[in-house]
Amino acid sequence: MRPLILISNDDGVGAPGLKTLTEVAREMGDVVVVAPQMNASCLSHSLTTQRPLRVEEIHKEEGLEIYACDGTPADCVKLAVTHFCSRKPDLVLSGINHGSNSSINVLYSGTMGAAIEASVLGINAIGFSLLSHNHNTDLTPCVPYVRRITAYVLEHGLPEYVSLNVNIPHIAADQIKGIRLCHEAKAQWLDSFEQRVDPRGRRYWWLTGKFVCDNPEEGSDEWALTNGYVSVVPVNADFTNYKALENLKGLI
Amino acid sequence: MRPLILISNDDGVGAPGLKTLTEVAREMGDVVVVAPQMNASCLSHSLTTQRPLRVEEIHKEEGLEIYACDGTPADCVKLAVTHFCSRKPDLVLSGINHGSNSSINVLYSGTMGAAIEASVLGINAIGFSLLSHNHNTDLTPCVPYVRRITAYVLEHGLPEYVSLNVNIPHIAADQIKGIRLCHEAKAQWLDSFEQRVDPRGRRYWWLTGKFVCDNPEEGSDEWALTNGYVSVVPVNADFTNYKALENLKGLI
Repeated sequence: MRPLILISNDDGVGAPGLKTLTEVAREMGDVVVVAPQMNASCLSHSLTTQRPLRVEEIHKEEGLEIYACDGTPADCVKLAVTHFCSRKPDLVLSGINHGSNSSINVLYSGTMGAAIEASVLGINAIGFSLLSHNHNTDLTPCVPYVRRITAYVLEHGLPEYVSLNVNIPHIAADQIKGIRLCHEAKAQWLDSFEQRVDPRGRRYWWLTGKFVCDNPEEGSDEWALTNGYVSVVPVNADFTNYKALENLKGLI
Repeated sequence: MRPLILISNDDGVGAPGLKTLTEVAREMGDVVVVAPQMNASCLSHSLTTQRPLRVEEIHKEEGLEIYACDGTPADCVKLAVTHFCSRKPDLVLSGINHGSNSSINVLYSGTMGAAIEASVLGINAIGFSLLSHNHNTDLTPCVPYVRRITAYVLEHGLPEYVSLNVNIPHIAADQIKGIRLCHEAKAQWLDSFEQRVDPRGRRYWWLTGKFVCDNPEEGSDEWALTNGYVSVVPVNADFTNYKALENLKGLI
């Protein structure tokens, strides 16, 4: 039996990154895509609880089904596993996201929300992101890395509660130096809101800001990306900081 | 100078849990509340990027300002720190949430989204949750624990990138046995969607499901709560699984 691969993303069902990821996945298994109808960036791990979800069938052929869902990326994975996959998928892929999800962006990322949800459901999962927001950019430099990392995870699996956050530098294929296993770089978003005044004199705020990661440490994903490597961070769905348990003994 | 304490939540600015938390915080410092206008449960760490944010002033007196924001809990913290606090807050509190955020619920929790956002901004933060969804429930059993943990963090601080996820069992005050430092229990949500058919014959799905955590391990938050303790989990904003870095060397 061919592996069953579930795919989602946060850029929406029409995004070129999703198409590329689907093409690579089809080389290795049967594919079900359940992706947000619209852009669902920055939705993190959120779930839709105040209204029901709708799903539209986009495409159906032997080995490939594509659905659009009006929920979040994590909704898509939950609903797909429960109602749109004939059995528990062997792998969940998310992306290829148009834009970086390195460093602390994993917190906000819908792409990684989908992958982390899969890991909680006991399914191996990988989120892929390319460091370009341009939907017209050439995605072919990503393909060998998507293929290699996907094949590796299909063969070897991942530890329990772990998904992979893969980011790919936006440089020519022959400039990419290889893959690095990394930890999340410590970084910050600064100056995060632009205040405006509407025609009625009332204030409103647009989220904006500047990603700052000065001198990223060697071994971090930002360092790897800056130096021409594909970064792979194993992401934990258990958020406990075990080391801090020791520091907090005074609290009891 | 009195400490400056920023408060948010995900149940909305009118929730009783927010009121109780505000009362306790005022004993220890000046308070700014920026909370979602409406229920914002399950919004995790999501941010509003497709529309601007609005803020309404609800209350203003010496030492207490309350604002309602039409964004997510993480939006509230970001915007409050940038535009509604006279200086960087000494502490961010979130809650008291009406309902559990123990175990994997931390993934979906807007309450903890606010706390984790604060920790990324370099501010000590605590999310409080009571194990009852009833907004009319008596919150006074929570008060001594909220007071004690808040005072501890104001005095001692927390490690970098760490916030606290505090859950309080819904039992009589004299039944609560004390505080336990815990790790997140491994658990699952099962059967997560109810399929219905609308009057036009089209299917739709409501998120539902059953939280399953059989025989929680001693040392986990579910164990502590089941056994009458307040659980405190140090939550990491760095999601890297450092142990898994070793296991993945075959990938390079």
